[in-house]
Amino acid sequence: MHTLDQALTLTALQHEADGTVRWQGHTHPGYANMVGPYGGVTAAQMLQAAWLHPQRLGEPVSLTVNFCAAVADGAFTIVAQPVVTNRSTQHWMLRMEQDGKVVTTATAVTALRRDTWADDETKMPVVPAPEQVPMPRMLLDRPFLSRYEWRVMQGSPLTELGTTSDTSLTRLWVRDIPPRPMDFAGLAAMADMFFPRVYSRRALMVPTGTVSITVYFHASGEQLQQHGMGYVLGQVQGQGFRHGFFDHVAQLWSQSGSLLATTHQIVYYKE
Amino acid sequence: MHTLDQALTLTALQHEADGTVRWQGHTHPGYANMVGPYGGVTAAQMLQAAWLHPQRLGEPVSLTVNFCAAVADGAFTIVAQPVVTNRSTQHWMLRMEQDGKVVTTATAVTALRRDTWADDETKMPVVPAPEQVPMPRMLLDRPFLSRYEWRVMQGSPLTELGTTSDTSLTRLWVRDIPPRPMDFAGLAAMADMFFPRVYSRRALMVPTGTVSITVYFHASGEQLQQHGMGYVLGQVQGQGFRHGFFDHVAQLWSQSGSLLATTHQIVYYKE
Repeated sequence: MHTLDQALTLTALQHEADGTVRWQGHTHPGYANMVGPYGGVTAAQMLQAAWLHPQRLGEPVSLTVNFCAAVADGAFTIVAQPVVTNRSTQHWMLRMEQDGKVVTTATAVTALRRDTWADDETKMPVVPAPEQVPMPRMLLDRPFLSRYEWRVMQGSPLTELGTTSDTSLTRLWVRDIPPRPMDFAGLAAMADMFFPRVYSRRALMVPTGTVSITVYFHASGEQLQQHGMGYVLGQVQGQGFRHGFFDHVAQLWSQSGSLLATTHQIVYYKE
Repeated sequence: MHTLDQALTLTALQHEADGTVRWQGHTHPGYANMVGPYGGVTAAQMLQAAWLHPQRLGEPVSLTVNFCAAVADGAFTIVAQPVVTNRSTQHWMLRMEQDGKVVTTATAVTALRRDTWADDETKMPVVPAPEQVPMPRMLLDRPFLSRYEWRVMQGSPLTELGTTSDTSLTRLWVRDIPPRPMDFAGLAAMADMFFPRVYSRRALMVPTGTVSITVYFHASGEQLQQHGMGYVLGQVQGQGFRHGFFDHVAQLWSQSGSLLATTHQIVYYKE
């Protein structure tokens, strides 16, 4: 079983009358960050609690995860409630608890997808093929970094801090190690892969922590199957930095140029 | 009292032991949309339920509002719970109910702001002063449109559908009618002002509805006071349109060029 699938394993503890299901899961040492787990996998675990729910309608469209408190290594409970189910959309409220205390909250929307007029207005930039982009030597040594193959084309403080810059734009190819067929949870996990933009701007690793992340899923499950084990192109740029919080906006494309997801997050930083 | 302040009036019904407060409010006919209220005011009402809460810590940093079901004209209850309170951040879960049914859910983060290194990486575009931009004749006639002064510089289907376009970029100046001192609720209300990007792309008004909106507040309360009753510059562009859902990313600046907020939303559309 792939490391990510191990991390995504949830066991139903209890079904309540209002549709709420309490799931038991565990943090995975393979996705550890400096302190606690990599936030992308926490986000994927939250989504998984809706995905595995027996009353789920459709596929993920939107996910917002709020990191309220440090997630400790070990067991957790995710409480997943389908709050409103319409004909074609379903709204979820979710929370992760450890020792009875909330550590993460989330909302999600799942929906039936239909064929409509379609266009990716934000086009994939012209970049070299993944095989032509060298894999960098990492500045940091954290377990989750070894779960991904990073091929960085531009501006990543993963590999160099360099000098201060007016732009935090970064572009990179990424893929699971070992490659894993793409699905919504895998995409949610990747959506948090971008290093803090404040590192790029300041050429300095100040303390940071994601406060809230939102992922909009543009691809259908069928498109994700077609994507398979291909590389994902990630592009990210910061927008505003002030008073200890900055945000970024990012896009994830398949190798064929389809916009798989867009994502934004707001991040706490010090100094 | 300003129409928006009337719409934001909430009365505490009940304080629960875990810090949850149940608020009573009413939709305002002045902010009616085609069916039900303008979503921006619903978002502002959700934020207001945290803002007025006696246990609130700090100022809004992040707000995500999910539109689960149509909000009916009339009374509603907002249930606001401070789920986790840390030393400098606080996490909120909120829901709006009518007749005991959930119609809107939200999460919010409030926080103490500190002085740090700061920069607006996404710069305000060079545009004419508000007074130089004519106020357009609206294509649509909905009550909430009369609550704002719209001065559209580029690409808005508020005023013309024109022909199909490769870009949905729109820039406009906006201000409350009558002018109102800026605050977080007023900014949250404005964050939903952008017309559906699919109108611009297709030169066609297909049925649409916001599913989920997120607002990141970059300005402090002090900055909003300085902004006062000035105009806000809004810029918006769609990213991906597929399978009945599209998203956009948008920025709101003060006249002096400070990034007040960034916002994204995912919108249902038909055809």
